[in-house]
Amino acid sequence: MPLSEFDLIDRFFRHAGVRRQDVRLGIGDDAAILESPAGSDLVAAIDTLVEGVHFPVGCPAASIGHRALAVNLSDLAAMGARPAWALLALTMRVADEAWLEEFTAGFAALARTHQVALVGGDTTSGTLCVSVQVLGHVPRSSAMLRSGGKPGDVLFVSGTPGDSAAGLQLEQGKLQGSAEPAAYLRERFLYPIPRVALGERLRQFAAACIDVSDGLLADAGKLAQASGCGAQIDYANLPVSKELVDVVGDARARELALTGGEDFELCFSVRPQNVGRLRQELPPEQWGYRRIGALRTEPGATVHAADATVMDFSHSGWDHFGR
Amino acid sequence: MPLSEFDLIDRFFRHAGVRRQDVRLGIGDDAAILESPAGSDLVAAIDTLVEGVHFPVGCPAASIGHRALAVNLSDLAAMGARPAWALLALTMRVADEAWLEEFTAGFAALARTHQVALVGGDTTSGTLCVSVQVLGHVPRSSAMLRSGGKPGDVLFVSGTPGDSAAGLQLEQGKLQGSAEPAAYLRERFLYPIPRVALGERLRQFAAACIDVSDGLLADAGKLAQASGCGAQIDYANLPVSKELVDVVGDARARELALTGGEDFELCFSVRPQNVGRLRQELPPEQWGYRRIGALRTEPGATVHAADATVMDFSHSGWDHFGR
Repeated sequence: MPLSEFDLIDRFFRHAGVRRQDVRLGIGDDAAILESPAGSDLVAAIDTLVEGVHFPVGCPAASIGHRALAVNLSDLAAMGARPAWALLALTMRVADEAWLEEFTAGFAALARTHQVALVGGDTTSGTLCVSVQVLGHVPRSSAMLRSGGKPGDVLFVSGTPGDSAAGLQLEQGKLQGSAEPAAYLRERFLYPIPRVALGERLRQFAAACIDVSDGLLADAGKLAQASGCGAQIDYANLPVSKELVDVVGDARARELALTGGEDFELCFSVRPQNVGRLRQELPPEQWGYRRIGALRTEPGATVHAADATVMDFSHSGWDHFGR
Repeated sequence: MPLSEFDLIDRFFRHAGVRRQDVRLGIGDDAAILESPAGSDLVAAIDTLVEGVHFPVGCPAASIGHRALAVNLSDLAAMGARPAWALLALTMRVADEAWLEEFTAGFAALARTHQVALVGGDTTSGTLCVSVQVLGHVPRSSAMLRSGGKPGDVLFVSGTPGDSAAGLQLEQGKLQGSAEPAAYLRERFLYPIPRVALGERLRQFAAACIDVSDGLLADAGKLAQASGCGAQIDYANLPVSKELVDVVGDARARELALTGGEDFELCFSVRPQNVGRLRQELPPEQWGYRRIGALRTEPGATVHAADATVMDFSHSGWDHFGR
């Protein structure tokens, strides 16, 4: 017997997040009632994952649940916000209980990590499609914007971008690799880690910040453009994982680091005079970020070889409709 | 040439709502930054419309834009909240500019009516699917819940439910009717009016409230169940429009009023001692609502004929997975 929409929401979503004191009313009424902390700004993001576009057909349900929340947490991280509440709209062809259980488990595990309450849910029938909206807070007027950079800022990125793009290709069978690095890279695609704690700490140091979802080169370019300047990225300084180099070689690893999508790392700019304090208070080896270049006056984002020549990466990032 | 996602968002969504002072940062960064009024609770709802499920293939784009916002405004109305901000996730097969322009116009017209700012947007490729999330406010601890009713409360509904269900059938060619009433009913399906102003006023009078989206009988039952009681609806008192009776006859009109979906009217319960004040301060003929029954101790929701016999409407409402 098919589950009714009501049963679905009730059984799977009601306990998919944590309980929070600031949720006056969660799932089960027409809307949620939430209490924002005094002196804070509300930060809101929405993102959708569609089967066949953001994940391959047959992707593990737990990964889909995880990623639907992770992409939004990553948006909040880029603003320096602390997440609080999520709303979930799930469209699926049939109400498959086993699938739902796994999906919810993936969502719930990440929600617990970041103390997020699921306060609203909507299920409909149709092609598999997950929209999640996350709400969080920053102390008033303290959010990091893309537009806060200026020429001379030092540019950083967290993690090792490119891993996720290779992981997707491995998942799709478009790439082969030896077992251990391949498993690592697939995990990076299936269960990306949003940099929520780093984002919150960066509010003290960063001038501008963006999350890397469309490829590092494209997103650094967006940060620079929003800041009314350009970005220069040093090819030799790109952080690439040992596993990625293992599977695709150094040159392709750097290309993927620049142009692969869905990394959910943070790219941020810091005034030169603040770099020392940043490194001291958030040691790079502990927090996992690296200097990759600088903002400059000349617009655009370019990649520079060790001999200062400009390198061409015209296939520059992920765009759902553009390619 | 296909538009890139960035261009799409920029061109169509950036100005799809109103400007508001409380939007510190709107579309264009990783997330929106919003300022909630002091002393208020935040109210949040999410709803998705899927082609072929919530609207027929080929439905006018302006209607889809209108309805995607309207269903969420209706949820906020049921809590008595004043809407402020919306986020929109749009999945569509191809980026058709003419379609997008019409869609945005439908969304924007309703957003203007209710002074809603569009603060976040996400576009992806896939089967046509629209998720909207709306945020609004109520004075702290003043939201209307489904659970506030008790036996003896008088039950009301706004508008003339059933019109929308008939309008959908006309739109699909499953029903025929003479030109004028048919046009009226189709308009009720295509451009439903969320009862935002009524919801805000009802906070002073209503004990419990729900929006009628799954059929009046089902939703009155949900309100009653959340309130730990039952509901009795008087068949003779059901408000049915002249146009609906014109097209389907009186008996079918009452059946549709009870079991049709997507009315986006408000069903609310009022303590008997407050009914006089309600009628005085919100005259029913001006605000368009009607007494349809009462809450009672015995659980369930039943429909009663003039001679007090219980009538059977076992086809009781809209459930995406349940039928």
